[in-house]
Amino acid sequence: MASDDQKVKPSRYIDGEFWELKDRLRKEIEDNDLFVQRYDSIQLANKKGFISSSLAIGEVFSCVDMSVGVKMGVMAWLFGGAVMNLGSEQHVVKWFQPLKDLEFTGMFAMSEKGHGSNVRNILTEAHYDRNTQEFIITTPCEDAQKFYIGNALQGNYAAVFAQLIIGQESKGPHCFIVPIRDAEGNLYPGVSVTDMGLKEGLNGVDNGILHFTGARTPRENLLNRFADVSAEGEYTTSIPSHNARFNAMLAALVATRLALSNQATASMKVALEIAIRYAFKRVQFGPGDGPEVPIMHYQTHQLRLMPNLATCLAVTFANRYASDMLDDDFFHKRDLVDNRSIQALASGLKAYATWENLQCLQTCRECCGGMGYMSENRLAGLKQDCDVFVTFEGDNTVLYQQVVKELLAVFGQKLGDNRVLQTLSLLQQETAEYIRTSMFAVGTESVLSASGMMKALSFREGRMLRKLAGRMIKKVGDGEDAFQAWNSCLHHTQALAKCHIQRVCLEQFVAAVDRCPSQQEKDILDKFCQLYGTHALYTDRAWYLEHGYYTPANTNELRQQLLSLCAETCQHALFIVEAFYTPRISVHAPIAGVPSTKAPWAYYPEPGTENTPMAIDVDAIRRTTPLQSKL
Amino acid sequence: MASDDQKVKPSRYIDGEFWELKDRLRKEIEDNDLFVQRYDSIQLANKKGFISSSLAIGEVFSCVDMSVGVKMGVMAWLFGGAVMNLGSEQHVVKWFQPLKDLEFTGMFAMSEKGHGSNVRNILTEAHYDRNTQEFIITTPCEDAQKFYIGNALQGNYAAVFAQLIIGQESKGPHCFIVPIRDAEGNLYPGVSVTDMGLKEGLNGVDNGILHFTGARTPRENLLNRFADVSAEGEYTTSIPSHNARFNAMLAALVATRLALSNQATASMKVALEIAIRYAFKRVQFGPGDGPEVPIMHYQTHQLRLMPNLATCLAVTFANRYASDMLDDDFFHKRDLVDNRSIQALASGLKAYATWENLQCLQTCRECCGGMGYMSENRLAGLKQDCDVFVTFEGDNTVLYQQVVKELLAVFGQKLGDNRVLQTLSLLQQETAEYIRTSMFAVGTESVLSASGMMKALSFREGRMLRKLAGRMIKKVGDGEDAFQAWNSCLHHTQALAKCHIQRVCLEQFVAAVDRCPSQQEKDILDKFCQLYGTHALYTDRAWYLEHGYYTPANTNELRQQLLSLCAETCQHALFIVEAFYTPRISVHAPIAGVPSTKAPWAYYPEPGTENTPMAIDVDAIRRTTPLQSKL
Repeated sequence: MASDDQKVKPSRYIDGEFWELKDRLRKEIEDNDLFVQRYDSIQLANKKGFISSSLAIGEVFSCVDMSVGVKMGVMAWLFGGAVMNLGSEQHVVKWFQPLKDLEFTGMFAMSEKGHGSNVRNILTEAHYDRNTQEFIITTPCEDAQKFYIGNALQGNYAAVFAQLIIGQESKGPHCFIVPIRDAEGNLYPGVSVTDMGLKEGLNGVDNGILHFTGARTPRENLLNRFADVSAEGEYTTSIPSHNARFNAMLAALVATRLALSNQATASMKVALEIAIRYAFKRVQFGPGDGPEVPIMHYQTHQLRLMPNLATCLAVTFANRYASDMLDDDFFHKRDLVDNRSIQALASGLKAYATWENLQCLQTCRECCGGMGYMSENRLAGLKQDCDVFVTFEGDNTVLYQQVVKELLAVFGQKLGDNRVLQTLSLLQQETAEYIRTSMFAVGTESVLSASGMMKALSFREGRMLRKLAGRMIKKVGDGEDAFQAWNSCLHHTQALAKCHIQRVCLEQFVAAVDRCPSQQEKDILDKFCQLYGTHALYTDRAWYLEHGYYTPANTNELRQQLLSLCAETCQHALFIVEAFYTPRISVHAPIAGVPSTKAPWAYYPEPGTENTPMAIDVDAIRRTTPLQSKL
Repeated sequence: MASDDQKVKPSRYIDGEFWELKDRLRKEIEDNDLFVQRYDSIQLANKKGFISSSLAIGEVFSCVDMSVGVKMGVMAWLFGGAVMNLGSEQHVVKWFQPLKDLEFTGMFAMSEKGHGSNVRNILTEAHYDRNTQEFIITTPCEDAQKFYIGNALQGNYAAVFAQLIIGQESKGPHCFIVPIRDAEGNLYPGVSVTDMGLKEGLNGVDNGILHFTGARTPRENLLNRFADVSAEGEYTTSIPSHNARFNAMLAALVATRLALSNQATASMKVALEIAIRYAFKRVQFGPGDGPEVPIMHYQTHQLRLMPNLATCLAVTFANRYASDMLDDDFFHKRDLVDNRSIQALASGLKAYATWENLQCLQTCRECCGGMGYMSENRLAGLKQDCDVFVTFEGDNTVLYQQVVKELLAVFGQKLGDNRVLQTLSLLQQETAEYIRTSMFAVGTESVLSASGMMKALSFREGRMLRKLAGRMIKKVGDGEDAFQAWNSCLHHTQALAKCHIQRVCLEQFVAAVDRCPSQQEKDILDKFCQLYGTHALYTDRAWYLEHGYYTPANTNELRQQLLSLCAETCQHALFIVEAFYTPRISVHAPIAGVPSTKAPWAYYPEPGTENTPMAIDVDAIRRTTPLQSKL
């Protein structure tokens, strides 16, 4: 089933612009004994790139060991990101360079037992002591304890979010660099740490609880980009609104979320490589009494794996697009807080990619049957490590709401304040858009084209957004409490946010196909791009039927296209996983052709190689094993 | 949000007819130190009931520890089931009673490295040696090794499936009781065992590889219910056809599959109890500056948990129905092999319940956020342990095909052999059914009723079945290879099998509501029953729209009904989880109100109890913690 393109080495287009950097890193990892053992790899990770290096590095490390990727994320993107985004230039000089040189390690203490998603209401307190010119950090109640803190059992400093109390008034959450342990690992007074024990996965990351009973940190350790406290205890801020100041601080999380989307994509790449290689070697059943066929031959197997491979590519290109936007903002020294659309994009991609990753991992595990359940074959560990991605650094359901709030804000700016005009405007746009894009108007053939699919996703996104705006305007206008009104639209928001991100992903996939320099790869990518769109639309075809956008004949065509694209892309699946350039040492699954001394029994040679110990032809095996020989 | 029915103790209706037996077992487990520690519980498990006891016992043990449930399954349902179903009366006397008394333990050696789903083509060989009147068991090649064998590191005997070779001809797979280890644990000659190491979960079960190099077992150890070999080496059988004989042997798996469906349901019960209790205690966000609200208040949370609770109930009643059918067959001494519909039902329920369970567990984990990721809160372990359920004892995609083959067989009997008549008959039924059941004919109000939902599911099942039959008749009639034709319909078969099982589940749920003796519980169950049907139909509404069965107005009503039923059933969720009567020691999750000395920090009191350390009202917490007190 593997087609001729196996003979051509894939280009570095899919691997991306930083492929040389990634290759250097991959080489170093391959040569380094540390990476033979899990959980010992943190040290090397810390010495590489670190913060200033690109998200590509995080991807490479995540392929080796997800705990390394996450621990890097905690130290670089979270602790380092807090210093970069919330600190002054002096803070960056003081903390950033020594962090790069691993003179100390940091942690990020935002979540509390009682407040995960609702960060604004955290309960930890920071009181200023004029006498010593220090902040005193306290945990006033059980719910205020800092929970799930990565690196808690080892780190030297923590970026602690606490309510800054001046007089008796809280100025809202602010971020303080608080000393936790000295260089010998002794806790400073007023700090206690509790190990949270075993987790489903990521047990290479030490998550713990921080409890403060009057821990002290110098006044200068308030990250004071947006607000400061003078030696005399006077509070000044460049952003007087509590809300706006809080949002400015949360902007620090943008890069982390994008990093998580990248790490989830890295996980998909590894898992798909394992499941796809195995699917070409593993045989089961077959026509009549003929030889058994590779399980990749089965329609169900293709339907389970190929849309996931297409999604992996789509998210790869969408991540790259978002990274470029972030690079551009950094280059022009624009504040992240002013770029709400990149915030929404990062949040949306994080939620979408991490959920897609879990679904992909589960599918890959199931597609490998019992072999997928054996720890040696890696899929189980990836599932366990990545599971928390969907709820940490912003619960996905909350992040999707953030995406929609951003979409509504942009939409609201266009509409202005007058309710009657708003409603009329909504109705007019509805009709105009409908006539312009309905399938009844443009003919059926374009259902199957990339532009037709883009149009369909955009139509749905726009329609759902206007509908949501209309529902909210009406509910609040009718006197319903805003919180309750929003709650009654949550189902709607989740579908809208996902549709928005899928539209962005398809858009970026189409653009990436256009830019692809190799014609052969362009053609292959184009098939996967069509598959991505087809699968997204087919999955949500009920909506299109409900809104009269597609006829049953259209959705039948979609299904046919889905099935035939799965069969077609399957011919190029090995080529695509090769184009990920994941080193064998990172794949390390015997069923994917990487032998393991611990589990020689799990070995299946790589597709395309000869001398397989695997029986392709049951009868042939029988013939080579004379029945009488053992008697 | 918890309503008044919290005050009334639930009846034992949901717990089922064997509740007293279950309670005795629960009490014994609760009093037994063994169950405090995981993986030590096998010993007690073995002493209980064992084979002759009902599936209810498996449920109780699975709630305590899934490894115990699975190890019981291996020994009782698989090894014991092989003896019961494939052996003679002498075999039952010889092996069954000592097995009950734990004089030895058994294993079940069917799967091989090369053949999991395709059991018919296993490669292990059994040659008869006339001189010693023994069978000689050999593993002729790597692919023939017995893989994933539970209890391989400890068991004394294995029920080994091997090709029975008489002369040079294979008589197909037969089952032999092969001695593996003596009472001291020493392996017998010709047997070697390899540990398969760590798995994603179920690490309380010792899975290993059996490799035979001329292991010997007496002639009498061939389980000879359907075929035998005389002292002189002559083969006799009551079922001359290889295929029919093989199917008769596979019938032994029926009870195991039903046991797995029961175990998956037990897992859902525990997970839902944890997630639902937590959802009523955990608060986050809220209206304006008012107190935060329990996360169960959110529409998304209700939509994620309530349909799963409804499914858990539906599967509970469907399992009970299938168990009753099995009991009845046993009572009347009917051969399982003659009852293909119970085989299809058990296969279908196994696939449906185990997939629903994984989805339910994942949802519960996510609904508990970071707390759900902590091992102490149990959900992670349940996920890991139950993951393999969807691929072992028959890969779910293969089992769904088996369901459909059974449906087609029954349907084919009605149609007879003439292709033209078949096609005409299909068309006529199509039209008649359509007129009889289309929503256009019966009015819209019945969309929302249980009978309307039953009709819709039955309509879809019938329509998809006839369509599949028509597709297969046409493809094969047009000369397409049968294997290829079936492969091109796999997507279709999966949807049909699921629809069939959902129809059975809804049917049994409706019947269970009718029979419920308590009016209060009947009303509550009725709501969940409606939710089950509504959710199933809403999820597949695209099909109904495509086939003109529902209008967009109907599916809009379905969505409204789904949302409002989720909000309504939520009021009774705590009552239902209480009705499961799972002992606290089995729930053992601190977030569900069961304290753990290992993780006191994870404790949330049970819903409804006072003196919570959890802050319901952030401002109240602030007031009770004077800001100045720590300075």
